[in-house]
Amino acid sequence: MVATIFLFGCEREYNADIIIKNAHIITMDGKMSQFENGSLVVKDGQIVVVGENADIEKKYKAPEIIDGAGKLVMPGLINTHTHAAMTMFRGYADDIHLHDWLYEYIFPIEREFVTAENVTLGTKLAVAEMLRSGTTTFNDMYYFVDEIAKVVDETGIRAVLSKGLLDFPVPDSPTPGEGMEKTRQLIEKWDSHPRINVSVAAHAIYSCSPDLIINAKKIADEYGVSFNMHVAETLVEFDNIKQEHGHSPVTFLNDIGVLDENMIAAHCVHLTPEDIQLIAEKGVGVAHNPQCNMKIASGVAPIPELMSAGAKVGIGTDGPASNNDLDMFDEMRTTAFIHKLTSNDPTFMDAQTVVKLATVDGARVLGMEDQIGSLETGKKADIIILDLEKPHAHPLYNIYSLIVYSLKSSDVETVIIDGEIVMKNRNLINIQEDVLYKKFDSLSVEIGNRIREIVMMLNMNRNIK
Amino acid sequence: MVATIFLFGCEREYNADIIIKNAHIITMDGKMSQFENGSLVVKDGQIVVVGENADIEKKYKAPEIIDGAGKLVMPGLINTHTHAAMTMFRGYADDIHLHDWLYEYIFPIEREFVTAENVTLGTKLAVAEMLRSGTTTFNDMYYFVDEIAKVVDETGIRAVLSKGLLDFPVPDSPTPGEGMEKTRQLIEKWDSHPRINVSVAAHAIYSCSPDLIINAKKIADEYGVSFNMHVAETLVEFDNIKQEHGHSPVTFLNDIGVLDENMIAAHCVHLTPEDIQLIAEKGVGVAHNPQCNMKIASGVAPIPELMSAGAKVGIGTDGPASNNDLDMFDEMRTTAFIHKLTSNDPTFMDAQTVVKLATVDGARVLGMEDQIGSLETGKKADIIILDLEKPHAHPLYNIYSLIVYSLKSSDVETVIIDGEIVMKNRNLINIQEDVLYKKFDSLSVEIGNRIREIVMMLNMNRNIK
Repeated sequence: MVATIFLFGCEREYNADIIIKNAHIITMDGKMSQFENGSLVVKDGQIVVVGENADIEKKYKAPEIIDGAGKLVMPGLINTHTHAAMTMFRGYADDIHLHDWLYEYIFPIEREFVTAENVTLGTKLAVAEMLRSGTTTFNDMYYFVDEIAKVVDETGIRAVLSKGLLDFPVPDSPTPGEGMEKTRQLIEKWDSHPRINVSVAAHAIYSCSPDLIINAKKIADEYGVSFNMHVAETLVEFDNIKQEHGHSPVTFLNDIGVLDENMIAAHCVHLTPEDIQLIAEKGVGVAHNPQCNMKIASGVAPIPELMSAGAKVGIGTDGPASNNDLDMFDEMRTTAFIHKLTSNDPTFMDAQTVVKLATVDGARVLGMEDQIGSLETGKKADIIILDLEKPHAHPLYNIYSLIVYSLKSSDVETVIIDGEIVMKNRNLINIQEDVLYKKFDSLSVEIGNRIREIVMMLNMNRNIK
Repeated sequence: MVATIFLFGCEREYNADIIIKNAHIITMDGKMSQFENGSLVVKDGQIVVVGENADIEKKYKAPEIIDGAGKLVMPGLINTHTHAAMTMFRGYADDIHLHDWLYEYIFPIEREFVTAENVTLGTKLAVAEMLRSGTTTFNDMYYFVDEIAKVVDETGIRAVLSKGLLDFPVPDSPTPGEGMEKTRQLIEKWDSHPRINVSVAAHAIYSCSPDLIINAKKIADEYGVSFNMHVAETLVEFDNIKQEHGHSPVTFLNDIGVLDENMIAAHCVHLTPEDIQLIAEKGVGVAHNPQCNMKIASGVAPIPELMSAGAKVGIGTDGPASNNDLDMFDEMRTTAFIHKLTSNDPTFMDAQTVVKLATVDGARVLGMEDQIGSLETGKKADIIILDLEKPHAHPLYNIYSLIVYSLKSSDVETVIIDGEIVMKNRNLINIQEDVLYKKFDSLSVEIGNRIREIVMMLNMNRNIK
């Protein structure tokens, strides 16, 4: 639809879908423009204009006018790495070692409970949580991706979706070959959806043969989509790969030819100086997951060094079974804190830099910087509105400081994605949460019973040893 | 008032003030008792009984019945170190070095703006924030403590209050001698208040002469109250004190005879193995402030080592100008994450341990373990009720994991302190927040203008250099 022009006296009135006015708007554009008394106009899923109230107010009309007085308007947050459906295992196995977590708890329970139905349920709960906490785009790697895509379609969120490929049988495909075939089908079915990009995912070097990684990357290149991997998450992984292949994980991936600007590497905790240069030179995007890395004691990714080298970096939560939430505000705060601490420099990782990581820089990691990540004319209307009438939001000296160090995900009041309001005054438009909670409670009783059996068996085995 | 006994048929009915029923209750008592379908009865400011619904329901009646279905009931959180009124400087100078922050930004602006009126305003905003985030007791060190005590009295929160003593003139007293006299007056005026304990505070070794510290401690001992200090917060402090006195900060404090079970030492980041032993042996309470220590890049306090040695440890936020919030849920999460990371052991600092630090252990640090910190018969009724009907609160496998890794301060719905409801369904009973925000906005414009002048002068001085 083209904007219709009316003439009233000397004034033009353009029809739009949504106008937000009287708000404090931060755009995250190249100039870091902000408007303390600003307006933003949305039409046909896109941002038409953003600027001072006075300039915009007289020119546009819309059926939906949002009064932004006392509110902050900013780009929706971009979660560059997660496994959303793992909400079903949130809090099921905490405070244990990564290897035990993965092999004794997660893999056995996934084999039983990761079904099409449960993935639908788990993803829907995750989307509710993400919308409520201001995330408008998430980059997901999991199983039963067709079901995940349907949830994304229904709920109104934006996502990059990939099916995890591994050497061994996974819940939705008995062989890697079948997995790859499914990946092709997903791309052909969903990649043209206005809010879905399909990506290809080889889980990790330790769970995929070199051939699987190379062939997966070929599919990504054939379709021109992004390629996701877990890279150098733990020291054990680094040491094992070095021993097996004679190289660091990153150098190994470079040798087999998969590092390029369409690759998204999650974690990147254990890197050599050469790895950092490689990542920057090849244009690989890094998804930084500080909370998960701390919780599992994997280490701290050298984000300062990556950024100095010119690498693309975004923030991710990782899955809710290892974080244990999908809260990007919390993850921003931790990103600032942990790098000030490890660099021994409180001036490092300042608040504005961190907000960039969670918005524009995240968009670059996903290769979507021309569409999302900032509030600019022509970009997709992915917008969050936060209520500043809260004690912790006063006083306001520096808006970026306020966002990173004081605001909470629960301050997000209204969420617009692709020009549609998906949460209004904290009411989700497309998700019936009470129904969801009931279903989740039943599922968690079943999973809980199995956990008790698993723990009993683990203890028996330990006693036998 | 003594509980009246009625006889209806064969059943007794005791009169109470508040009954919470049908709730998931965690008591944090010595056995870590919890009740999945529990009740709790409050009368005359105290907890009368806590246990299974069925056992309690028939015995008690009360004018206020709170249905706890779908909710979590737990002890209110205890913030063992803060400077609440510094809300007025929240976000005013972030991402800079501690020394610059203190000497170039905080001290100059404090001299101008720390007035009785502004401290009242700043503390009231802080109390609003603390109640909204589930803190029921805070240990505060600041100036104009008589005004702070009035705010505590009016708003219904519980506090330990101390006036910071320093060698140089401070906003509410031109000399340390006058400061000590004021401290005596405060103890005599307020220490018998049911929700206020007055403490004595020598700010730090680097800001107080040995004589000032010794004399301040004498006042604390004379009245039998606790004694607060900032101890070994930064490496610069550690090195300077070592150079000046030939000892570590903790050893120096031991030498001048102030370390005992009535002392509360904030930070304790830089400790020798001997310091750790001393703190444990002397029974000194440690207030751990992980977020502030990360944000200012001070380091990570050796909390694992202190706990192994048997030291008392609680959690604090530090002031909102250096954190920048008063959110104990956030601080719990960071406590778990940072010590897993630095100990390189994900099994360390498990969720239950962290909840203990923020409740019962915090009460021990403040010397109040016989009154607060757990939900047990005879203890003060300081209780928070959280709404679990949120996406991030599902599923529930382990309640402590849920609290530390997933729940948010904004899930706190109702707060009871000393048997009085001070927040109900997120409405504060004794604080008019909209009026407060308006006053705060005016104040922050004034402070903001002065900041711009200060920054201009700092830049001029730097250019001249």
